[in-house]
Amino acid sequence: MFNLYYLSTTTSARRQCIVLYNHCLRLRRFTMATKQDDNVLVPLSEAESFVERCMVAVGAKPSHAKDLATLLVCADYRGHFSHGMNRLSMYVEDIRSGTNAKDGEPVILKEMGGTAWVDGKNVLGPVVGRFCTDLAIKKAKEAGIGMVVAKGSNHFGIAGWYTMRCAEAGMLGMSFTNTSPLVVPTRAKKPVLGTNPLSLAAPAEKGDSFVLDMATSTVALGKIELNNMKEIPIPSGWGTDSNGQLTQNPSEVLQGGGLMALGGPEVLGGYKGYGLSMGVEILCGILAGSAFGPFVRHWTKKEEEANLGQCFIAINPEAFAPGFPGRMSTLMKECRTAEPAEGETEVLVAGDPERQHMKKVDEEGGVTYHRNLIQLMDKLAKDLTIEPMKPKA
Amino acid sequence: MFNLYYLSTTTSARRQCIVLYNHCLRLRRFTMATKQDDNVLVPLSEAESFVERCMVAVGAKPSHAKDLATLLVCADYRGHFSHGMNRLSMYVEDIRSGTNAKDGEPVILKEMGGTAWVDGKNVLGPVVGRFCTDLAIKKAKEAGIGMVVAKGSNHFGIAGWYTMRCAEAGMLGMSFTNTSPLVVPTRAKKPVLGTNPLSLAAPAEKGDSFVLDMATSTVALGKIELNNMKEIPIPSGWGTDSNGQLTQNPSEVLQGGGLMALGGPEVLGGYKGYGLSMGVEILCGILAGSAFGPFVRHWTKKEEEANLGQCFIAINPEAFAPGFPGRMSTLMKECRTAEPAEGETEVLVAGDPERQHMKKVDEEGGVTYHRNLIQLMDKLAKDLTIEPMKPKA
Repeated sequence: MFNLYYLSTTTSARRQCIVLYNHCLRLRRFTMATKQDDNVLVPLSEAESFVERCMVAVGAKPSHAKDLATLLVCADYRGHFSHGMNRLSMYVEDIRSGTNAKDGEPVILKEMGGTAWVDGKNVLGPVVGRFCTDLAIKKAKEAGIGMVVAKGSNHFGIAGWYTMRCAEAGMLGMSFTNTSPLVVPTRAKKPVLGTNPLSLAAPAEKGDSFVLDMATSTVALGKIELNNMKEIPIPSGWGTDSNGQLTQNPSEVLQGGGLMALGGPEVLGGYKGYGLSMGVEILCGILAGSAFGPFVRHWTKKEEEANLGQCFIAINPEAFAPGFPGRMSTLMKECRTAEPAEGETEVLVAGDPERQHMKKVDEEGGVTYHRNLIQLMDKLAKDLTIEPMKPKA
Repeated sequence: MFNLYYLSTTTSARRQCIVLYNHCLRLRRFTMATKQDDNVLVPLSEAESFVERCMVAVGAKPSHAKDLATLLVCADYRGHFSHGMNRLSMYVEDIRSGTNAKDGEPVILKEMGGTAWVDGKNVLGPVVGRFCTDLAIKKAKEAGIGMVVAKGSNHFGIAGWYTMRCAEAGMLGMSFTNTSPLVVPTRAKKPVLGTNPLSLAAPAEKGDSFVLDMATSTVALGKIELNNMKEIPIPSGWGTDSNGQLTQNPSEVLQGGGLMALGGPEVLGGYKGYGLSMGVEILCGILAGSAFGPFVRHWTKKEEEANLGQCFIAINPEAFAPGFPGRMSTLMKECRTAEPAEGETEVLVAGDPERQHMKKVDEEGGVTYHRNLIQLMDKLAKDLTIEPMKPKA
């Protein structure tokens, strides 16, 4: 180790040596421990019904509760557990505390042939998002493209839920949202921007589709938290410490550091991810006139309205060259049948990992939740005096 | 070195040790050698005039030659020398050989309120791009948004040229193009997709603007070639070898390997860059019905038409919340005034490095070309029997 340390001519190379050495030591300490019997199988319909029961119990309008239920269980069905039932307590709390409006509907503030500006009226994010998506689809049918931008919105869950709705209508869909500041601009010390996710979905033949749904940061905060809990280092490129330096220590990221934009350090193109994060903010907060950038509330700060900005685009492929789904299928096939790299077994396209997870859920007759989550949900049910979530018989 | 090598518990960690060791050795060998007197200063107007002279000499329509001249010199002015005068010979050759149409204009094949599908008629890329951009701006004025997709196009130079045109018209601009396959999908062995760049520009107050212009690969091929020429290793994450494995040897990337999508390896989010590259292809080749993905000709293969697909979007900020430029300026200020990380002096936003370069050019009264390029241009002038490019007096 120290041979290499002294051979290294740059500070960053020396730092890399130390980090690598620590990584080796920690890897030896760490063993995974997840037991099969920690899992509980719940039918999708029961999971949805449970979310609805909770939300209605705290006073949410039944149709709003239904939108949220469909969205959260869709996330779990697709394997994005961080954005599913796991977040239910947050939505319940937002409604219960009055930070989120229980009732009302989004309203259109301004409209042109291909666009609309919407006030979400502080109702649940999925209600705003579905409203805007359906409006964008309607406009795309008439004008070839529809773009709807909303202010006054809230957490909208997985960005892919909205774009898949477009794909089901035969359209290309795009969605974007701003989020609380967590991402450090290239060369900066502290977070200014959010993980600002984007999604693009496009329909192919026979029900197949491309569904990209990604944060513009290298990883989501949850992954850093997970490594911190397990006491294992994070890969170099996920986060920075409180001085804006690359770190592999997850607690340094969580304590005054920040997430890196996609690409990581500048030499690996991190400034592009930083640009993308800012681009999403422009399409959301800056166009919408909502909170934006460093002015978006911290995601744990519940006393003020979120006033998030979001953007939804639907594109009608019939406005362009005929035969779109066929070409989509060909492109996806070219990627999927590409020869795997040494050590890999298959090449996927965006949406395939989710499809694999959905197949598993279908075969098992339900989604698998960890017992800890079930216990939290049982506690929530008791608290709200509603029927708890029933596992598969 | 070997202590650390044997301490490392994973193959990748061991590989990292070897690479790091080699890197240290090569860094000692390498010294940069660029002399001040290798540079020649040329006024921007003369550079533009020279491009026009060349293109007209091989038969290009004068208005087409003018578009190309403006684009190429704009790239050099902004400091993107790889996309400027450096590429003139390619355009000259494309017109001379007949691969590119000398004459004609793009035509609209299909039109809706917010969209148009265009056939570029195989004229020069900048001519197609300017036509589509102006059409998108016109539509955005009427419908709030305009999206124009072209088939039958050619290399369109810097993607930012089109989006800045939108910003100058007070609009947000987006542009995309597909390119020859060079990027290896995550987990694959060989390139399937292009470096598929995208640009987003947005106007702020007092002539300020955000201009993101980026390939969806970690770096452009030119950077790999440069390192190869200088015999210095590339950072891990730029490219893969012919087995689809990460490599720091640039010649392995060039000989049967490929570029990595933004993010690099899968653990650092490379699958997101892969998704973005595919997303750009969907907006371009798949919507346009042009060549796409692995079917785009190799960029050195000149016997067939390129038939590239491109996409141009203009968004009218007046269709949304009033006060867009003010919020843009605030967001940019928040980033620019963010405290720099340890070892950094300033935080920039997309477009700032180019602004710094343009300031330098303005102060010096011209753009600085390397003598080698000037010699090539002199040779071209002789070949075409036109006046050579005149340096600043």
